[in-house]
Amino acid sequence: MNHSGATAARLVRSARRLFAARGYDQASVRAITRGARANLGAVTYHFGSKWNLYAAVVDQMFATMADRLAAAADTPGPATVRIAGLVQAMFAFFADYPEAPRIMLHALARGGPPPEAALPHLRRNLTTITAVIRDGQAAGELRAVDPFLATFTLLSQSIWFAVARRVIASAAGRPLDGAPAAAAVARHITDVAVRGFRADPQGDLR
Amino acid sequence: MNHSGATAARLVRSARRLFAARGYDQASVRAITRGARANLGAVTYHFGSKWNLYAAVVDQMFATMADRLAAAADTPGPATVRIAGLVQAMFAFFADYPEAPRIMLHALARGGPPPEAALPHLRRNLTTITAVIRDGQAAGELRAVDPFLATFTLLSQSIWFAVARRVIASAAGRPLDGAPAAAAVARHITDVAVRGFRADPQGDLR
Repeated sequence: MNHSGATAARLVRSARRLFAARGYDQASVRAITRGARANLGAVTYHFGSKWNLYAAVVDQMFATMADRLAAAADTPGPATVRIAGLVQAMFAFFADYPEAPRIMLHALARGGPPPEAALPHLRRNLTTITAVIRDGQAAGELRAVDPFLATFTLLSQSIWFAVARRVIASAAGRPLDGAPAAAAVARHITDVAVRGFRADPQGDLR
Repeated sequence: MNHSGATAARLVRSARRLFAARGYDQASVRAITRGARANLGAVTYHFGSKWNLYAAVVDQMFATMADRLAAAADTPGPATVRIAGLVQAMFAFFADYPEAPRIMLHALARGGPPPEAALPHLRRNLTTITAVIRDGQAAGELRAVDPFLATFTLLSQSIWFAVARRVIASAAGRPLDGAPAAAAVARHITDVAVRGFRADPQGDLR
């Protein structure tokens, strides 16, 4: 098997489009190879099987997401600024990987455990974001919110906007297609999370 | 067509299970009627078509969600208490309709516009929740957050927990199956939203 090289990269791109549009079962090897301008045997030659090609698509996509979140978290500064950077990184990832939401939806709709290829990257995301929350808590900027649940608050809203954007726009009668709409939602997620997580300088307001 | 009666109700229940497990295309009329202990012609007799049966499933499910949110919003009290009630209503809905997350995932993964049958209920949810936010703003309890985005914050987290619960548990290595885990997440969503939305008695802390 040879995952590198131009043909393998074209197969990954073609497969990403087709797995997003049709789901794993309905995306045929024939359609994937045709989309990659490769011969029918290319999936077996480069990846061994359709499932391994799917794993390569998932691995590449979620590795990119995890790399971008890690890079955003790596920026020094107060927790509030780093949280804004994490949310922006999620929105930038979905802007650059328009197939990601539907690949995630198909995988979730199938049920069962998440693809093995995604798990290390999802775990890395949790580690990255909980560390930002813990740093903010250690610095006295953030209150003692559960770092795992704080991570859930940031990721869930960012992902749900990516996956349900069109349905939300239909229901709201409000166009949400463009980059300015996404930027406004990202700012809102950050703003509410920062206010929701921050330590209160005057003590607990409740 | 006759949507009422015991057979029609059994067809809706059987279809809900099969549309959730397999998606619209892969759920056969044969399997649906078998699951409802009805004859093969029962879907046509009671609903006219498989698509109309799907519409009936979606309509019944989302009408229930909208009714429960409206009932939660109808409770008098401060906005913070009503927000807690809205989040609890979402979690209670998903506990009672375990098929709802996968039906939503299949519909989203298919792409295209949301099912027509869902739209009036989704619009009603927006109206219900934005009214609670506006009431809280009029009473001076909540700051001038965009009511639509505030609604997004509450719904997106509640829905994402329902649809991705197992994947999140796998990634986090933390069981999230039971009612106590769901209750903790619901409390967290409420807590962060209330802190994120409320008017600051000492003026803007930022």
